Amino acid sequence: MTNNVTSIDHQIEIIRRGCNELLREPELREKLAAGRPLRIKAGFDPTAPDLHLGHTVLINKLRQFQELGHDVLFLIGDFTGMIGDPTGKNATRPPLTREEVTRNAKTYTEQVFRILDRERTEVVFNSTWMDRMSAVDMIKLAASHTVARMLERDDFSKRYRGNQPIAIHEFLYPLVQGYDSVALQADVELGGTDQKFNLLMGRELQKHHGQAPQCILTMPLLEGLDGVNKMSKSLGNYVGIQEAPNEIFGKLMSVSDELMWRYLELLSFEPLKTIQQWRAEVSAGRNPRDIKVALAQEIVNRFHGADAARNALADFESRFKQHEIPDDIAEVRLEGEADGLAIAAVLKQAGLTPSTSDALRMLAQGGVKMDGAKISDKSLKIARGASVVLQVGKRKFARVTVN
Amino acid sequence: MTNNVTSIDHQIEIIRRGCNELLREPELREKLAAGRPLRIKAGFDPTAPDLHLGHTVLINKLRQFQELGHDVLFLIGDFTGMIGDPTGKNATRPPLTREEVTRNAKTYTEQVFRILDRERTEVVFNSTWMDRMSAVDMIKLAASHTVARMLERDDFSKRYRGNQPIAIHEFLYPLVQGYDSVALQADVELGGTDQKFNLLMGRELQKHHGQAPQCILTMPLLEGLDGVNKMSKSLGNYVGIQEAPNEIFGKLMSVSDELMWRYLELLSFEPLKTIQQWRAEVSAGRNPRDIKVALAQEIVNRFHGADAARNALADFESRFKQHEIPDDIAEVRLEGEADGLAIAAVLKQAGLTPSTSDALRMLAQGGVKMDGAKISDKSLKIARGASVVLQVGKRKFARVTVN
Repeated sequence: MTNNVTSIDHQIEIIRRGCNELLREPELREKLAAGRPLRIKAGFDPTAPDLHLGHTVLINKLRQFQELGHDVLFLIGDFTGMIGDPTGKNATRPPLTREEVTRNAKTYTEQVFRILDRERTEVVFNSTWMDRMSAVDMIKLAASHTVARMLERDDFSKRYRGNQPIAIHEFLYPLVQGYDSVALQADVELGGTDQKFNLLMGRELQKHHGQAPQCILTMPLLEGLDGVNKMSKSLGNYVGIQEAPNEIFGKLMSVSDELMWRYLELLSFEPLKTIQQWRAEVSAGRNPRDIKVALAQEIVNRFHGADAARNALADFESRFKQHEIPDDIAEVRLEGEADGLAIAAVLKQAGLTPSTSDALRMLAQGGVKMDGAKISDKSLKIARGASVVLQVGKRKFARVTVN
Repeated sequence: MTNNVTSIDHQIEIIRRGCNELLREPELREKLAAGRPLRIKAGFDPTAPDLHLGHTVLINKLRQFQELGHDVLFLIGDFTGMIGDPTGKNATRPPLTREEVTRNAKTYTEQVFRILDRERTEVVFNSTWMDRMSAVDMIKLAASHTVARMLERDDFSKRYRGNQPIAIHEFLYPLVQGYDSVALQADVELGGTDQKFNLLMGRELQKHHGQAPQCILTMPLLEGLDGVNKMSKSLGNYVGIQEAPNEIFGKLMSVSDELMWRYLELLSFEPLKTIQQWRAEVSAGRNPRDIKVALAQEIVNRFHGADAARNALADFESRFKQHEIPDDIAEVRLEGEADGLAIAAVLKQAGLTPSTSDALRMLAQGGVKMDGAKISDKSLKIARGASVVLQVGKRKFARVTVN
């Protein structure tokens, strides 16, 4: 019994790592105490994404549950995807065919099985139960919640107050998502912090159907390489999991020392104890670059294997030796406006170019890199609070932080 | 062609008689001009009511459409009735079984076929198409309208502002009702004035489905025998169509001269020209009692046949001859409070009883009639604006109007 309790404390510690909110710990302890593998649900759009590290925060947590002996229900929300946007207002979201959904699911799982354990993952599609649902069932489902309650949801509330139309079926989708938990008899559901309302919906519908309510665990959004904005493809501050090993390695080596700790918490599978020890060592004077190397190697290893990780490190180190990348990059702090500081001004003020017009010319010629990736957009601004490594030509480097 | 246009004008005149609103006349003229029988929809709850004359205002209008050569779709809304109130909050509305619906429909149609032409009436049940509807279809239907639009409906708006819960499925029912018009390809839908929002829903959904939108015709609520409140069983101011011929006859003879014209407009099938002529004659001195007799006879005839109508008249007249009912009843006007005047005070002030305590005793003994029906409720109040015929014992009569 003592052993069991210890093990539950240990599980809770791993589950809580990096999480935003856990509702409710006593209930989760009770579920864990039963000793059976729990059913861990996470829902995904039936689109075919190129996953980046931001997406993997949630998937990593699923992996941790698997390592604790639990089963993952990887739910593809194809039911609503196959309906599309019935208002026809969203031209970018036409209904998906069953073939597209199947293809997208394959693309998805090929990527996530670099993290998840196939043996402990069940890929499920909510069309399985939703296609069989009748209008009567839908009406009964709709009866379980009130309009006022639904209008409390942040985005709905903003749109309603802002006189932006909300089609009535949009009230039904959170209910469908909640009902998925009933159909799956989920014990725990994971989601981003922005999903909390929908996750709670699942809890309530399970109670309504006489099931023990699922616990909910929300994970934060991962900051991108700039350390400020959320990681996203459109902001260019991302690390794609299908990128080349050297790219991934280089980008991770470019993050600030502060962001490194955040990435270790959310992206690394190193035990918390190891990370705490590293923190102590860095405080005592160890070069944080060593820790960054460990992180970069772990991530490249995860997506490209051990050989690729070794090669990426060797390549990185040989470039160091050739002084392509200085071991110690100059740190520059600049003052930005409310909306940041224009890239040309940054380059000039950081002493990387003699003038703004030189900066613009270098950008046009492809001679500027940010966090290891070439940039050419002259209208780019570095946000206040962001910290990036800039490189002009082969030799000039600076880590610039905009305040 | 000229003939056709004349005939359309004539149809419009009959259709407009007594109506509250017709949307839209040009569209209806176009439909009529096509020369085919139109499909006239009216929806009814799947409950088993004792119909009173108030209910027949709408049914009379359906009958008029039939006389103009059109077809009536008598829609029993059994789909929602068989779901009941899924929130379980309304204990008085448990789900109906299919057997109950069938039985209720029979009770209903037995009554309405005293007015409607069986040959031109199709009794339809919306479960026929709604039971086949999937959750996907329901979601697509829900996508056709916005939350804001639905909250504009009077009752929803009041409840939302008053923080009274509206369950989400309540937003789906008006859509179902509107979709019935699509399924039925209705040309015209009739309803009470309180149904306008739902009738418009049908128009819009038909457009959405590529159909010509139905015209809508709203009919007013009929005033009860008191001439003030709407006719209703619970207010006791009604004439049930299954009541005995003498009862119906007596109650209709008791209405005020003013209310008589309203009843002629909404309940009689006499041509408008005849009614206009009667108005002229009464203005010129003819006793309105003659007109009331014609109305009472028409209504008794409708529900009990010609013999019953003749007998009811004979009976009524013989009671006149025996002076049971005075030919000319004294008119009394009394001052009421905001919430009316208590019945005992009315009886005393009208000189029908020497005191209030006498009035209460007569009520207790069953010696008081209002509009021909025995009353015994001491807490009854006569509303301001109401006009009733009161009788105490066999001889004492007064028409009392409370101001």
